[in-house]
Amino acid sequence: MDNFVFNNYTKIIFGKGCENDVGREITKYGRRILLHYGGGSIKRNGVYDSVLSSLKEAGAEVVELGGVQPNPRLSLVRKGAELCKAEGIEAVLAVGGGSVIDSAKAIALNALYDGDAWDFHARRAVPKAMLPVGVVLTIPAAGSESSDCSVITNEDGFIKRGLRHDCMYPMFAIINPELMYSLPKEQIANGCSDIFAHLLERYFTNTRGVEFTDRMIEAAMKTVVNNARAMVCGTADYDAWSQVVWAGTIAHNNLLNTGRVGDWGSHNIEHELSAHYDIAHGAGLAIVFPAWMKYVMDHDVPRFVQFATRVFNVENDPFDQKKVAKKGVEAYSAFLKSLGLPLTLAEAGIGTEKFSLMAKQAVEIGGGKQGNFVELREDDIVSILKIAAK
Amino acid sequence: MDNFVFNNYTKIIFGKGCENDVGREITKYGRRILLHYGGGSIKRNGVYDSVLSSLKEAGAEVVELGGVQPNPRLSLVRKGAELCKAEGIEAVLAVGGGSVIDSAKAIALNALYDGDAWDFHARRAVPKAMLPVGVVLTIPAAGSESSDCSVITNEDGFIKRGLRHDCMYPMFAIINPELMYSLPKEQIANGCSDIFAHLLERYFTNTRGVEFTDRMIEAAMKTVVNNARAMVCGTADYDAWSQVVWAGTIAHNNLLNTGRVGDWGSHNIEHELSAHYDIAHGAGLAIVFPAWMKYVMDHDVPRFVQFATRVFNVENDPFDQKKVAKKGVEAYSAFLKSLGLPLTLAEAGIGTEKFSLMAKQAVEIGGGKQGNFVELREDDIVSILKIAAK
Repeated sequence: MDNFVFNNYTKIIFGKGCENDVGREITKYGRRILLHYGGGSIKRNGVYDSVLSSLKEAGAEVVELGGVQPNPRLSLVRKGAELCKAEGIEAVLAVGGGSVIDSAKAIALNALYDGDAWDFHARRAVPKAMLPVGVVLTIPAAGSESSDCSVITNEDGFIKRGLRHDCMYPMFAIINPELMYSLPKEQIANGCSDIFAHLLERYFTNTRGVEFTDRMIEAAMKTVVNNARAMVCGTADYDAWSQVVWAGTIAHNNLLNTGRVGDWGSHNIEHELSAHYDIAHGAGLAIVFPAWMKYVMDHDVPRFVQFATRVFNVENDPFDQKKVAKKGVEAYSAFLKSLGLPLTLAEAGIGTEKFSLMAKQAVEIGGGKQGNFVELREDDIVSILKIAAK
Repeated sequence: MDNFVFNNYTKIIFGKGCENDVGREITKYGRRILLHYGGGSIKRNGVYDSVLSSLKEAGAEVVELGGVQPNPRLSLVRKGAELCKAEGIEAVLAVGGGSVIDSAKAIALNALYDGDAWDFHARRAVPKAMLPVGVVLTIPAAGSESSDCSVITNEDGFIKRGLRHDCMYPMFAIINPELMYSLPKEQIANGCSDIFAHLLERYFTNTRGVEFTDRMIEAAMKTVVNNARAMVCGTADYDAWSQVVWAGTIAHNNLLNTGRVGDWGSHNIEHELSAHYDIAHGAGLAIVFPAWMKYVMDHDVPRFVQFATRVFNVENDPFDQKKVAKKGVEAYSAFLKSLGLPLTLAEAGIGTEKFSLMAKQAVEIGGGKQGNFVELREDDIVSILKIAAK
């Protein structure tokens, strides 16, 4: 196991009705609040009203900025940061999923920064501080509610870039799975795919002596596999939802990568897909990750065997480990398919025309490579995209 | 799953050589430091020198208070709190295991309190704040390095009482498993028993819909079972040590009881044993917990079957679930025995003479009962002690 520092200070407030605590929590950091949200679904499902009523009750002065799109855009971040400065905002409240939270973090960073809003994500500036960010989570998936990450898309060139820094943990995250029941089926499936992919990125490591985190990741993966279908079926099954949503937060709060180096190649390849084609992140991952697995499997067959046997209960065959490893990938794909997710680029309507461009952009951000479990160059990424094609 | 709030702000600094960061970390909270430790083993194994050198380098002004005993005593807490007040101490650094950390927390609480030092643990006063506490962990087990708990023994009546409060998390915990290699075999075994017991207390719950935390607890239990023997054998196996030590911290940082109510009956029964007989906590738990399991098993046989099959790989027998459940308890006892731990009160030289007194004192603190999975009254505790007797 590698040395590590782990310090996640996000306060998690989890369960039925907990959104009514938001006013009390956010006003601990100031009265001037930027309320940040997406396309307006929170106005239809009642979350907006609950949140606003709690804010008013706590004496908050609310400035609103809606309109966050999936793959959140730099232009809105710019607008938000200017608004914070003009309005003397003291804290940002994100009500939404990963896109809204990532946008809120970028706004909160830039509210305290006078340079260009793309500087941080473009690695031209290092974050020092951000306005306090609070979260009311309405989509399970991104894990951004208690992570140090923000992923933003710059429309100028369709560049999607992730940024992480210690100062980027939200102060609190309010998580009531019941607020998520009304999500469209596809979005639930995408969320489950994203959670599972966060676990996989951590799982595939070259670090030895990591039995504890291996087993914790497997615990989370099994939980997602056992419960995701009930969520997608729209059964309003609190037991199923609460398990996956809590696993989704833990999947991305850095606990499960303590002392180990994860991969992250698939995520960065997928970022190119969704930047160029605006495909949902979870759907993109459902296409890219199995292809990545097939491409890199020979690097460490035992790890794939462990994945297959422990997570998907594939029976071990000591005489044909590769077969067992492959069955694990098949089981993962079958799980994704059971949620209604696309398994190929063709199914998602994505052609081969931008493979080279996307591979080039993906390695650009990694200094000529992507991934840690196996280092991928441009031609490797093109090969993975070809496997993913159909 | 129950609603919950989870907010553990202890910064974990884990790995080889990390004790050299202690000066920099603790002086973030002030220069006047109380250095608190136990019987002097840290002077023999070099930890004291490393810590003191790091403190001096960071410009700390150090006041020392050693002499913490296992089952840490109130008298030393009193002395430490007075010392903090007299010396204008700004932060307390605990270098040791659970006893030293628990003592440090009690001192840090009472340093800011003018009433009697037993008030908090006796439930006559509620904590509001404590001096910042930092930890250099030298014994894996108690989990106190990132928990909100402190257990203190009042010599006046041999009363051992646990206390927990949100303000009682240490600011940081420095954890280098290499510092623990020189521990006596018995102490390592006691530590592993204590870690496993912390997991069991959380595992045995009546809360439904807790698959995720069930699986996370099982992940930690399997990790302890697979690696504890190598630690006790003195193999200086970093992979084994680092897994169990990290699992030991997570076992007790409240993550694994999110959304569920644990039991804690066995811990409170054991507190009486070690208060009256000064038996090591881990050894006491090795005696009490299997006895508790036998006594309460019929309350929820399926949970015991899950424990047996998932943690100890007992083969399921759908036609005789009770047999499977019993085999789980046998496997747990065999594991404890393999570490050299006592399995009966007789082996520990403890007779039957105080069963009634200990049962009475144990339920006193719980308002007439102990335990949540099964509520135990005085006569239940006497019955459990009788099972544990030989």
